[in-house]
Amino acid sequence: MSAGFLLVLSGPSGSGKGTVSEALMEKNEDISFSTSVTTRTPRPGEVNGENYFFTSIEDFENMVEEEELLEYAFVHTNYYGTPKKFVFDEIEKGEIVLLEIDVQGALQIKKRYKEAVFIFLLPPTMDELRNRLVKRDTETEEEINTRFKNAFKELDFVGEYDYFVVNNEVDDAVESIEHIIAAEKLRVKRHKDIKKEVLAEKKGDL
Amino acid sequence: MSAGFLLVLSGPSGSGKGTVSEALMEKNEDISFSTSVTTRTPRPGEVNGENYFFTSIEDFENMVEEEELLEYAFVHTNYYGTPKKFVFDEIEKGEIVLLEIDVQGALQIKKRYKEAVFIFLLPPTMDELRNRLVKRDTETEEEINTRFKNAFKELDFVGEYDYFVVNNEVDDAVESIEHIIAAEKLRVKRHKDIKKEVLAEKKGDL
Repeated sequence: MSAGFLLVLSGPSGSGKGTVSEALMEKNEDISFSTSVTTRTPRPGEVNGENYFFTSIEDFENMVEEEELLEYAFVHTNYYGTPKKFVFDEIEKGEIVLLEIDVQGALQIKKRYKEAVFIFLLPPTMDELRNRLVKRDTETEEEINTRFKNAFKELDFVGEYDYFVVNNEVDDAVESIEHIIAAEKLRVKRHKDIKKEVLAEKKGDL
Repeated sequence: MSAGFLLVLSGPSGSGKGTVSEALMEKNEDISFSTSVTTRTPRPGEVNGENYFFTSIEDFENMVEEEELLEYAFVHTNYYGTPKKFVFDEIEKGEIVLLEIDVQGALQIKKRYKEAVFIFLLPPTMDELRNRLVKRDTETEEEINTRFKNAFKELDFVGEYDYFVVNNEVDDAVESIEHIIAAEKLRVKRHKDIKKEVLAEKKGDL
């Protein structure tokens, strides 16, 4: 009596969605991680179908046309997208599929697949978000300012999400997401015929 | 950043909602238990406003007319109902209010107050439900048969609920409800302006 679903973990740069996502996967081996499709060249050691599904630009654009992607984006010189087939196959098997994605991507998915569970990861404060962007030391000051301004705007979209989780401590954020997963497994709407399931079950099997 | 809500725990006779409800309250002292209003005479030791709000038939019928009740029923010779005021005052304070009620009552509430969280408690099997009804030893065989048939019919209404919880072991059922409560506290829709809350918070306060 288990029903899978897509869990979209999203939030602005600096909310810590990458770290939380990794910690969540480490603690919950039964969660599938959504594998993206990309047109970029595989790096040494990257395995097709594991790190990414690697594909040509032509094939990618075909997928877009055929509506085979839940969302996609063009970043620098490459396409990245989320293939429906992988996600839906896993859900069909009763799996929970985690997709960690920026706010723009999550909003695209919301339009195409409302059945997903949308979590908005929040920084405890905007000061803390800026600290995290600075600490990463991967962007110039100008880039940090841009990301900060974007984060500020992206907070306007929290109303499109189902849940919010404040990422003050990674462990607490992971625990909150675990509660959400446990609750969503018990959603009536994900089960076609609970009465039939109860009537069919032998004692203790449900 | 806490928002209260009404948690309706419901299910057929023999699903164990009374036992689960008690165990849940014992473990979670911060949950309020919804106090019913009734026209029956207080038993020795019962305190007005604690066990029940005791009232006259006239006042009760006035409350019905003024739509001051979330649900009510006439059982044997007495009225029982759930006063809106108590529930809404607690919610306003940010409390979680637990209401344990039969399926008919829950469906009444669903019509009047969709914002509540509705949990349907299921027996692991219909055989087990019958065992529980027999074990209580409070009803005649005929009454047990009636309750069993009603339980069977009431399963048709599970689709009106948000969540289902299988009561195989009381502790597991309580844990499932705790997950649901934790998740529902993180619902975006219960918070008017999360952006404002983030911007207003000092580090670590959210």
